[in-house]
Amino acid sequence: MEKVDEIIQAKWMITCEEKKVLENHSLVIDKNLIKDILPIELAAQKYSATHIEHFATHVVLPGFINTHTHLAMNYFRGLADDLALMDWLNNYIWPAEKKWVSQEFVHDASLFAIAEMIRGGSICFNDMYFFLQQTAKAVDISGIRGAIGMTVINVPTAWAKNPDEYLAKGMEFFQEYKNHPRILTTIAPHGPYTVDDEHLLQIKKIAEDNNLKINMHVHETKDEIQHSLKNYQMRPLARLKKLGLVSPRLIAIHACQLNEEDIKILTDGKPQIVHCPESNMKLASGTCPVARLHSLGLNIALGTDGAASNNDLDMVGEMRSAAFLTKHTTENPATQPALDTIYMATINGAKALGLENITGSLKKGKSADFIAINLDDIETRPLYHADSQVVYAASRNQVSDVWVAGVRLLKKREFTTLDEEAIKTKARNWRNKIMS
Amino acid sequence: MEKVDEIIQAKWMITCEEKKVLENHSLVIDKNLIKDILPIELAAQKYSATHIEHFATHVVLPGFINTHTHLAMNYFRGLADDLALMDWLNNYIWPAEKKWVSQEFVHDASLFAIAEMIRGGSICFNDMYFFLQQTAKAVDISGIRGAIGMTVINVPTAWAKNPDEYLAKGMEFFQEYKNHPRILTTIAPHGPYTVDDEHLLQIKKIAEDNNLKINMHVHETKDEIQHSLKNYQMRPLARLKKLGLVSPRLIAIHACQLNEEDIKILTDGKPQIVHCPESNMKLASGTCPVARLHSLGLNIALGTDGAASNNDLDMVGEMRSAAFLTKHTTENPATQPALDTIYMATINGAKALGLENITGSLKKGKSADFIAINLDDIETRPLYHADSQVVYAASRNQVSDVWVAGVRLLKKREFTTLDEEAIKTKARNWRNKIMS
Repeated sequence: MEKVDEIIQAKWMITCEEKKVLENHSLVIDKNLIKDILPIELAAQKYSATHIEHFATHVVLPGFINTHTHLAMNYFRGLADDLALMDWLNNYIWPAEKKWVSQEFVHDASLFAIAEMIRGGSICFNDMYFFLQQTAKAVDISGIRGAIGMTVINVPTAWAKNPDEYLAKGMEFFQEYKNHPRILTTIAPHGPYTVDDEHLLQIKKIAEDNNLKINMHVHETKDEIQHSLKNYQMRPLARLKKLGLVSPRLIAIHACQLNEEDIKILTDGKPQIVHCPESNMKLASGTCPVARLHSLGLNIALGTDGAASNNDLDMVGEMRSAAFLTKHTTENPATQPALDTIYMATINGAKALGLENITGSLKKGKSADFIAINLDDIETRPLYHADSQVVYAASRNQVSDVWVAGVRLLKKREFTTLDEEAIKTKARNWRNKIMS
Repeated sequence: MEKVDEIIQAKWMITCEEKKVLENHSLVIDKNLIKDILPIELAAQKYSATHIEHFATHVVLPGFINTHTHLAMNYFRGLADDLALMDWLNNYIWPAEKKWVSQEFVHDASLFAIAEMIRGGSICFNDMYFFLQQTAKAVDISGIRGAIGMTVINVPTAWAKNPDEYLAKGMEFFQEYKNHPRILTTIAPHGPYTVDDEHLLQIKKIAEDNNLKINMHVHETKDEIQHSLKNYQMRPLARLKKLGLVSPRLIAIHACQLNEEDIKILTDGKPQIVHCPESNMKLASGTCPVARLHSLGLNIALGTDGAASNNDLDMVGEMRSAAFLTKHTTENPATQPALDTIYMATINGAKALGLENITGSLKKGKSADFIAINLDDIETRPLYHADSQVVYAASRNQVSDVWVAGVRLLKKREFTTLDEEAIKTKARNWRNKIMS
């Protein structure tokens, strides 16, 4: 008998390593890593553990990787909805950001957003915002894993006044956090219409020199395409290709507005794609042709986008919307079956961030990042297929437990690292300030 | 001071009578009817009640009317997903129905489905299935309100072997239940491809003689259109018009596959439309042009469809999907604002069923049918607009309380009329039988 730290016995298990649902398996955890996955009885013969827990009505799976967020925008959730995109940005979101975004705001709002993510089963996120150290502090406090992008944008904010200052502050952050066990730094040019060629080339060099992913909104809206045609006489992806940015290092967020030429550029360059179906539908941005890009060999991850546009950080709901939208747009109910959707929300996110050797699936040697979803509710009974139930019937509140790097961050719906009431009170206080 | 039974004080209230959110209002209930709606302080001056309850973080609104269900199919939830429609029907759903549907099955499964609906804030449904008395019994036990359709279909089942027997059994049911305070009988020809002209004419006469709504799947799929063109040399709506069925009496479910001629028929005939966005997306049936039909003056209600195709009876989620899909298809994020979506899920359902004088909105004299949704969760904070929060951020599990006809069926998430554990156990037992 080998001694280990923890054995998690689960009625159902989805590893995202093999395309099936395991029944009655144990996840064996030691020193914050996954040590083994095997049938419950075999695990009991082979390992003894200080802590053994049985999840009789749960499915255990790698937690979700929310591959596109603007965490601190959580404080603007529902501030303005049902508006045309430029009205929404010009008259509500940008003025609110200009007035309110500060160190304290980003700290409090990021922690609030991380609380929502943990409660919804996300074990990792990929963020783009300002005051990066504050988001990092929220990662430290909470215990979640996260990629934090050093935003570069040709718009002044309280964080930086021009692209050079954004870059300088970003690199400071990178140097400070490059050895953090749960924080990955990316470089995040905001979008083709907000960063000029000179800075994109500089960003490319920094990314290559430091082996950083480039996290960028790409082909989100028709306006973005028009802007590029007018200012650069070519579409944004053609421009990014010309600048040498379209490679597996690029994380292309949205990819809604694609013509055949664009799809060819993506197929040749193989960037990571992040699909944000709810944001794209709600803002009427268009739709990423997920099924087609998948068939062309591209890796497609899933993100919620910021809560001001979506309006939540709920990856369970986002999976359902993603599946529905693909079936709807392909006019084929057989496309994107449930397990593919779960892969999109887990291992594909890890691949997009280059973290696939650390997280994103249940595999020997990977970090003990995983969640349990309780399928015993009326809404998820009777149960024929756990994968279908997760994608088509479960709700975020059925996430019962969340572990990141072997630490249990959510235990039977209760936070272990965060003070829920304090977080809610701060959100209320900020709301009152913003409304006053 | 006037004595009344109950005063419900709510932080926010959406009446679905005026297009705004009320703050700090009281709903005054007496003899199971809504007696008054007024600011909390004024209510306290005017009325004294045996029971006064304050909902400090809740929005109170008319409950949802799930205007298209096949309740008993809840036991087939997730039995087979991600399949082409005819593969799904021919090889999974119809064989399962043939083998399992019985009096006992419909009784147990309907009660199970009603439990899900009450937990999700539905106060009324519009069903089409078999063994109608069993569904009615589940209505009696649970206290919910429901429309039960006397299904007519040219397919033999354990309930009836041909359209004549369906009609005879349906009329028996109607006679038995026509004075029930919470049950409405409709006549429900299954669809244009499963009922012949002779029986449609007979149904029309019965409906007119007895003032019944005609509840029917209409233009759901391309196959249905092809079938009609082949067998009747016209599209289904043209045929229904020819037979005199397209009138406000008709409840046309789905209405996905519409050309200009069809839209003209709908605009002239003004039937009730039931939009089922999640079922339509998941089965890739097409999309009801909701925004256009709305602008043409048609009443559009919302339904989940059966849980075998959706896979839940969650009207909160269905509202969100409906809003997203309309914005996506119209390419305009300003279409179908949040309050319109809430109307679609409440008063429009009542209008579709002809119950708008009884339920569907909070109005003096109407039945005390209403729900409370607790918006205090992290996922629905900060709160700027309660209507936005309900549609774009809330989840079904935030429905805290449900009243139908003045009776509280859900109290702080607990059933008052149903035994949750017994219902779950029965679902498990049926699942084991079906899988064996």
